[in-house]
Amino acid sequence: MTAVNQVLSRIDTNIDQSVDRLFELLRIKSISTDPAFKNDCRMAAQWMADQLTAIGIPSQVRDTTGHPMVVGHRTSDDKPGPHVLFYGHYDVQPVDPLELWETDPFEPRLVEREDGSKMIVARGADDDKGQLMTFVEAARAWIEETGDLPISVTVMLEGEEESGSPSLQPFLEENKEELAADLALVCDTNMWDRETPAITIMLRGLVGEEITLRGPDKDLHSGMYGGAARNPLHVLADMVAGLRDDDGRITLPNFYEGVIEMPDHVKAMWDNLNFSETAYLGGVGLTQPGGEKGRTVLEQIWTRPTCEVNGLWGGYNGEGFKTVIPSEAHAKISFRLVGDQDPQKVRDAFRAYLAEKTPEDFELILHPHGGDPALRMDFDAPALAKGQAALTEEWGKEAALVGSGGSIPIVGKFKTILNMDSMLIGFGLEDDQIHSPNEKYELSSYHRGIRSWARVLDALSKD
Amino acid sequence: MTAVNQVLSRIDTNIDQSVDRLFELLRIKSISTDPAFKNDCRMAAQWMADQLTAIGIPSQVRDTTGHPMVVGHRTSDDKPGPHVLFYGHYDVQPVDPLELWETDPFEPRLVEREDGSKMIVARGADDDKGQLMTFVEAARAWIEETGDLPISVTVMLEGEEESGSPSLQPFLEENKEELAADLALVCDTNMWDRETPAITIMLRGLVGEEITLRGPDKDLHSGMYGGAARNPLHVLADMVAGLRDDDGRITLPNFYEGVIEMPDHVKAMWDNLNFSETAYLGGVGLTQPGGEKGRTVLEQIWTRPTCEVNGLWGGYNGEGFKTVIPSEAHAKISFRLVGDQDPQKVRDAFRAYLAEKTPEDFELILHPHGGDPALRMDFDAPALAKGQAALTEEWGKEAALVGSGGSIPIVGKFKTILNMDSMLIGFGLEDDQIHSPNEKYELSSYHRGIRSWARVLDALSKD
Repeated sequence: MTAVNQVLSRIDTNIDQSVDRLFELLRIKSISTDPAFKNDCRMAAQWMADQLTAIGIPSQVRDTTGHPMVVGHRTSDDKPGPHVLFYGHYDVQPVDPLELWETDPFEPRLVEREDGSKMIVARGADDDKGQLMTFVEAARAWIEETGDLPISVTVMLEGEEESGSPSLQPFLEENKEELAADLALVCDTNMWDRETPAITIMLRGLVGEEITLRGPDKDLHSGMYGGAARNPLHVLADMVAGLRDDDGRITLPNFYEGVIEMPDHVKAMWDNLNFSETAYLGGVGLTQPGGEKGRTVLEQIWTRPTCEVNGLWGGYNGEGFKTVIPSEAHAKISFRLVGDQDPQKVRDAFRAYLAEKTPEDFELILHPHGGDPALRMDFDAPALAKGQAALTEEWGKEAALVGSGGSIPIVGKFKTILNMDSMLIGFGLEDDQIHSPNEKYELSSYHRGIRSWARVLDALSKD
Repeated sequence: MTAVNQVLSRIDTNIDQSVDRLFELLRIKSISTDPAFKNDCRMAAQWMADQLTAIGIPSQVRDTTGHPMVVGHRTSDDKPGPHVLFYGHYDVQPVDPLELWETDPFEPRLVEREDGSKMIVARGADDDKGQLMTFVEAARAWIEETGDLPISVTVMLEGEEESGSPSLQPFLEENKEELAADLALVCDTNMWDRETPAITIMLRGLVGEEITLRGPDKDLHSGMYGGAARNPLHVLADMVAGLRDDDGRITLPNFYEGVIEMPDHVKAMWDNLNFSETAYLGGVGLTQPGGEKGRTVLEQIWTRPTCEVNGLWGGYNGEGFKTVIPSEAHAKISFRLVGDQDPQKVRDAFRAYLAEKTPEDFELILHPHGGDPALRMDFDAPALAKGQAALTEEWGKEAALVGSGGSIPIVGKFKTILNMDSMLIGFGLEDDQIHSPNEKYELSSYHRGIRSWARVLDALSKD
C-alpha cells in the first residue's frame, strides 16, 4: 500500500473526530465585520494555532491592527516538489436575519437527509471554516500516518476576509520573506457540482464604498418641508438608479476599460459544462437573468463586471407611517471587477459620479471598502495539471476549470506582494447558502475534501 | 370688566397650574403608530376624558377598532353663536432617533433662554398635546370664571392622527348626529411667526404606500449571483428615482390633474408676508430649494403636490461590509396632494407605475396609508372674520391667512361626512421640531394660545 493510500485510509477511519474538531471551531462566533465579536475572532485564531501546533505545524497567533493572523511552518530544504503556502480564513459573515435560521448559527449540527446524505449546518460550515479544515485534517493524517508532510508547507490563516482584509497588505509586506513560497493553495471556492471537483482559474475583483448623504441638518416633517427641501433618500435612489442602463450595463465613464472577452475555446469548454441557467436562477426563486443583455449567465457571473447595492437605508422603517424627510441616507455599494479593470480607476470614477450628483448644500461622506483587481491563472502551470489529476482521481470525474464571480482578495495580494500564483481548490456547493441563513457544508465535501488535499499534497511531491 | 377680560385675567393668574396639567399629559407615551404603546394611548384618552369631565364638559373614552376617541359635550339650545366642535389629537409621533434627544422625550421640562423666554420640551409639546390643551384650558377658565361657556361646545379628541386615522371615518359615520355642529375648530397648525397669529385656509392631502419588493427567495452572495440576479434594492431605487424629473415634477400620468393655480390676489397677499426663503431653508441646514423649478418656496409647500420617500431600507446596514444581494427591499412613500387632486386616482396611478416597473419574477406587496384630499376654506365665512379679529386683538398684529403643507385628515372628513367647515387656528412655530428630536412649544404659544381661544369663544358668541 502506497503512503497516500495509507493516509486516505486513516482519514476514513478518523472522520468522526475530524467532524468533532470542525464543530469546536464552528462554535466560536468569529464575525469579523462587527466589533462586538473582536474577542471571538481572537479565540478562533488561538484555536487554529493550537490545532496546527498540536499536529506538527508549529504556529503562532500574530497581531495586526485588526484581527490576528495565524502563521505556521513545516518546511525542509530536502523535500521534493514546491513549497506551498496554504491560505484560509477563520472569520465568518454576520448572521442576520437571525430569525430565518432554523437553529442557532453557532451551534453546529449534522443533519441526515432521507437519502442518507448528511450536511453540517452552521455559520462558517462552508465559508471558510469547513473548507480550511479540509486541508488541516489532510495534513494531520499525513503527519500521523507517515511522520511528515510530503512537501514543505506554510500555513497562513486570516481573520478579516469577510470585512475587507484591512490588515492583509501590511502583514504580507512586513513578512514577505517568511511567507515566501512557490505556490499558494487557497481553499475558499466551490466544486462545479455535487460530483464534479473544480479548480477556479478566474476570480472577480471588488471595489466598495459606504456612502452617507447628509441633507437637512435634522429630520423634517414632509408636510412642512415637502416640495421645498430635497430628500436625501430620493437623491441617493437617483444615484443608485443611474448606475445601470436599461441593458444592465454600468454607466460610469470608462468602466469597461480592461474588461476582456473570453477566447472561443474557453467559451466552448464552459458550454460543455451543461450549465442550466433555469436551474441556477430557479434555485433562488428567480426565472429571469437580470444582468447584461446578450450574455450567458456564466459570462455574467464569471467574466462581466457588476455594480450591486449591498445595503440601503434611511428614514422611518418601523411599523406604521412617519411622514418624515430624513436628514441622512446611507448605502453600501460594491463593484465586481474582471480582467484588467483598475480598482482605483473604478473607485475614482464612482466617487466623481457621486460628487457630481450631490446637491450643492448636501454633504457626501465616503468610506472605502476592498479595492482588489480580478485574477486569472496561468493555464500552463505544472501544478495546475497535477492538482487537476489528483482531484479527478479522488472524485472519478474530470475536474473542471472554471471561473468564479466572487472576490478572494488574498489571491491578488499573493500575486502583487509575494509574486506567487494561487491554485484555488474548494469543495463548497452552490446551495451551501454561504452569507445567508442556514449555511451548510456537505459531509461529503468535508470528508472527500480532506481526501482530495491528501492526494494533492502527494501529487505535488511527484515529478 | 367684561366677562372675557375676567377670563383672561384668570388665565394669567393660573398659568403655572395650566403648565403642570400639560406636563401630566406629556408624560404619557401615546405613540399611536407603534403597537407597543397601545396601553399608553388608552391612558392618554382616559386622562383627557377625566380632565374634560372635571372642568364641566362631561366626556367619555369611546372605543374604536384602533385607539379610542374622547368625546364630550357642553351644549344648550339657548346659547348664542354657532355650536362648535373642537378637534385635537392626543397621540404623538415615534421618538427615534432617540440618541438625538437631549433629555427623555417623555419627561417634559421648561427651559429658560438667556433672553428670559421659556419653552416646553417633550414629544408632543407642540404636536398636538400642547396645542389641544390651549383650548381645554381656555374652556376651563371660562367655566371657572363665569360658570359656563359662551357658546355650545362639543369636543372630539383623536388618538390615531399620527398613524393614518384608520378609525376616524367609521367613527364619524356612526356618530354623525351626536357630532353635528355648525363649525369645527381645529388646533393643530402654526402661527405665521413668533409675533403673528395665523388661520390656515389651505391644507395638503396625503396618499401613502408601504412597499415591499421581493426578488430572490433568499439573500444571495453578490459574488456568486451578482450580474445574474436582479437586485431588489436596485429595482426599488429605480422606481423611486423615476418618480421625479429633473425639474422636480412628479412623473406619474395625470398626476397634476386637479392642481389649481392660486389667483393673483392670493399670491400678492403671500408676497406681503415677507417670507424669507433663505431663512426658511437655512433653518434646517439647506441653501437650495429642492422642489419644482419656477415656483416660490411658499408655492412649493402650500400649493404644489409632492412625492416623498419617508423610509427606504434593505440589505446589510450594520458595521463593515456584507456583499449581499438582499431578497427584499422596502420603502414608505407618500404624496402630498393639493387642490382637487383625487387621492384614489393618485394611488391607482402610483400602483400601476410600481407594477409596471416590477420584474416578472419579483413580488410586489403594497400596504396603503392615508388617502385624504386637500382642503380649502371659504374666504367669506363669517366665523373666519370673527376668528381673525379675535387673534389680531390678542397678538396686536393682523392675523395672517395662510396655507399649510401638512395634511390634517380630520378636516376633509368633517367636510365630507359631517358637512362642516373647519377653522384652523394653532400656535406652533416652524422651529418647534415636531416629528423630530427635541420637540418644543413656546411657553408664550401655550399661554397666549389659551388667551386666544378665550377670545375666539367670546367673539363667536357675538353677532
